[in-house]
Amino acid sequence: MGGYSHCQGTEGLRNAIAVGIATRDAFPCNAEDIFLTDGAAAPVHMVMHLLIRDEKDGILCPIPSHFLYTSSMALCGATLVPYYLDESGGWAVSISDLKKQLDGARSEGITVRGLVVVNPGNPTGQVLVKENQCEIVEFCRIENLVLLADEVYQENVYTDEKRFISFKKIARSMGFGEEDISLISFHSVSNGYYGECGRRGGYMEVTGFNSEVRKQVYKVASLSSCSNLAGQVLVSLVMNPPKVGDESYTSYWEERDRIMLSLSRCAEAMVQAFNSLEGLTCSKAEGAMFVFPSVRLPKRAIAAAEAMNTKPDVFYALRLLENTGIVVLPGSVFGQVPGTWHFRCTILQQEEKIQLIINRFKAFHETFMEEFRD
Amino acid sequence: MGGYSHCQGTEGLRNAIAVGIATRDAFPCNAEDIFLTDGAAAPVHMVMHLLIRDEKDGILCPIPSHFLYTSSMALCGATLVPYYLDESGGWAVSISDLKKQLDGARSEGITVRGLVVVNPGNPTGQVLVKENQCEIVEFCRIENLVLLADEVYQENVYTDEKRFISFKKIARSMGFGEEDISLISFHSVSNGYYGECGRRGGYMEVTGFNSEVRKQVYKVASLSSCSNLAGQVLVSLVMNPPKVGDESYTSYWEERDRIMLSLSRCAEAMVQAFNSLEGLTCSKAEGAMFVFPSVRLPKRAIAAAEAMNTKPDVFYALRLLENTGIVVLPGSVFGQVPGTWHFRCTILQQEEKIQLIINRFKAFHETFMEEFRD
Repeated sequence: MGGYSHCQGTEGLRNAIAVGIATRDAFPCNAEDIFLTDGAAAPVHMVMHLLIRDEKDGILCPIPSHFLYTSSMALCGATLVPYYLDESGGWAVSISDLKKQLDGARSEGITVRGLVVVNPGNPTGQVLVKENQCEIVEFCRIENLVLLADEVYQENVYTDEKRFISFKKIARSMGFGEEDISLISFHSVSNGYYGECGRRGGYMEVTGFNSEVRKQVYKVASLSSCSNLAGQVLVSLVMNPPKVGDESYTSYWEERDRIMLSLSRCAEAMVQAFNSLEGLTCSKAEGAMFVFPSVRLPKRAIAAAEAMNTKPDVFYALRLLENTGIVVLPGSVFGQVPGTWHFRCTILQQEEKIQLIINRFKAFHETFMEEFRD
Repeated sequence: MGGYSHCQGTEGLRNAIAVGIATRDAFPCNAEDIFLTDGAAAPVHMVMHLLIRDEKDGILCPIPSHFLYTSSMALCGATLVPYYLDESGGWAVSISDLKKQLDGARSEGITVRGLVVVNPGNPTGQVLVKENQCEIVEFCRIENLVLLADEVYQENVYTDEKRFISFKKIARSMGFGEEDISLISFHSVSNGYYGECGRRGGYMEVTGFNSEVRKQVYKVASLSSCSNLAGQVLVSLVMNPPKVGDESYTSYWEERDRIMLSLSRCAEAMVQAFNSLEGLTCSKAEGAMFVFPSVRLPKRAIAAAEAMNTKPDVFYALRLLENTGIVVLPGSVFGQVPGTWHFRCTILQQEEKIQLIINRFKAFHETFMEEFRD
């Protein structure tokens, strides 16, 4: 692993990943479409750089969303064209809102070049239903947008009612091929149940571009020589977990199931606890590693925050940290409908501590609401 | 190594690197100035992005130089302000040429923001003399340019007459501190005698910027989470090789000396061989891993290349490849004084094969010159 590889990554590993993707989707995957990357942040920056010419180019980006996208756009000088995920609909993508935001941006002279979708969602923890995914693909196809599919949490689904389906599988199932839709899917070894984030392994699958554009993608990828080889190996393993008959088959799947069940129980306990509290509403944790409850803060709490020149959700999160040691990220980091307040909380707690954490959180929240009750 | 680190890299490893740098330079180094990176390409792109606002900003860049710099500038939309290394002076930096190019760019409305220096040189293999380094530092200080010092070949010096001195040591020795000069030094585990390029380990040392600028550097660094942890560990080891009393001291230095001596013998054999051939002139290989001989191509060879719509040095390199299997990179990849032709050749051959390679090269070159003699 001490030598440079091909700038898209070692061919044998890309072949293995292509087999993994084809097995997952039941549609073919071409190893030439795979670019092995240092995690998912580097290729997102690269793609933004490729898509954005100046501030008159825009990208449709969900709100709330991980700051990777908004900061990458800021760095490239892109115009952020936000669309709001529908909280009451389990953080689904509203096509009517997408259309409204797209038309609004276009009427201001913005050329919208792409649409970011994060599925399973971060910070929102939803898994999109197939019908919603089909609508998104159709929207991108009709409106000629590059679909940037953040699918880094694809292995993390906690509900039996839903499963992860890649956007490429959706598109191909609808009969759309290379000529119909431009699609880039991002994956990483940082975000699954394995969570090997320090290894910086990842890939992007680039489909639906003509050969001239592909040459430019290749050229820009080649500027950083190649991604680290250990990360390359790791992402090829993630896409090819042990199969029946492999020596590690039993131990691998036992460990995987144990982790997934534990995460699922933590998520359920937290959602239940949040929904039992005054002013808190929390959607089901279906996937990824997060819940994103809404907290209706009392007017007096909002006033107290403003008096300290702090956003109300930041005020709440800092109070929580100071009183309990529990760290959550305020919703304003990710964006939220104005006048609403949220926080993002991971579901990665050690399970034996979850009840302790919940009790501590409950005690804090009740005291907070008591203190600031209108 | 599976977890994220601080976005500048693990604190303990940065501390170790700072100790290594301070030991190397005999001047203090602050671990807060160190950013651990995925190789040296990623931080170069990052710094270019930070320095360049639009095409009216320029960077002084040596010709010939590695295409990392020219391509990174193209990607950021920077104006390349080239300066020619002085081949007859052993590829030294000519301050009068620097000044001429700087004044020329300024008269065209370009704001020149920085100066790239590669020492030891790639593709040119020179090690700058101390007096030349002092002139460069003084030039940057007076002209208010950020000095971007590519020092990735710092461990690779093959001549007893010269040694590597970091630009920071030069600046500090001249009495210039944080307030006097802005300096970024790049290093990587890809390029030393260890050559662990697939590990993607590296660092940049950022000195001489005010706190507002430093915050922006930090912010942009944080967008990619952190560099891969194995690479972080490796670069900390590179900067802290085994010391007297360490278990691996003897074996490490024996292996290191064996590699360095072998590289040095290869370099000498190649330089001698090149200089013995008609039309070839090759500067001494002092450092890095390359020689960059000049080849005076016969007019008929130039005409033959042009008839094929090929650059003459590309024509020569392709002929060499086809006839011998030897791969060199044509000088036009790196830039060269118009009307001159070069090629870059590594000195990384297995030593037992060097005579075979040289014989094959000689036979090719003689035949080529015979074929195209004017």
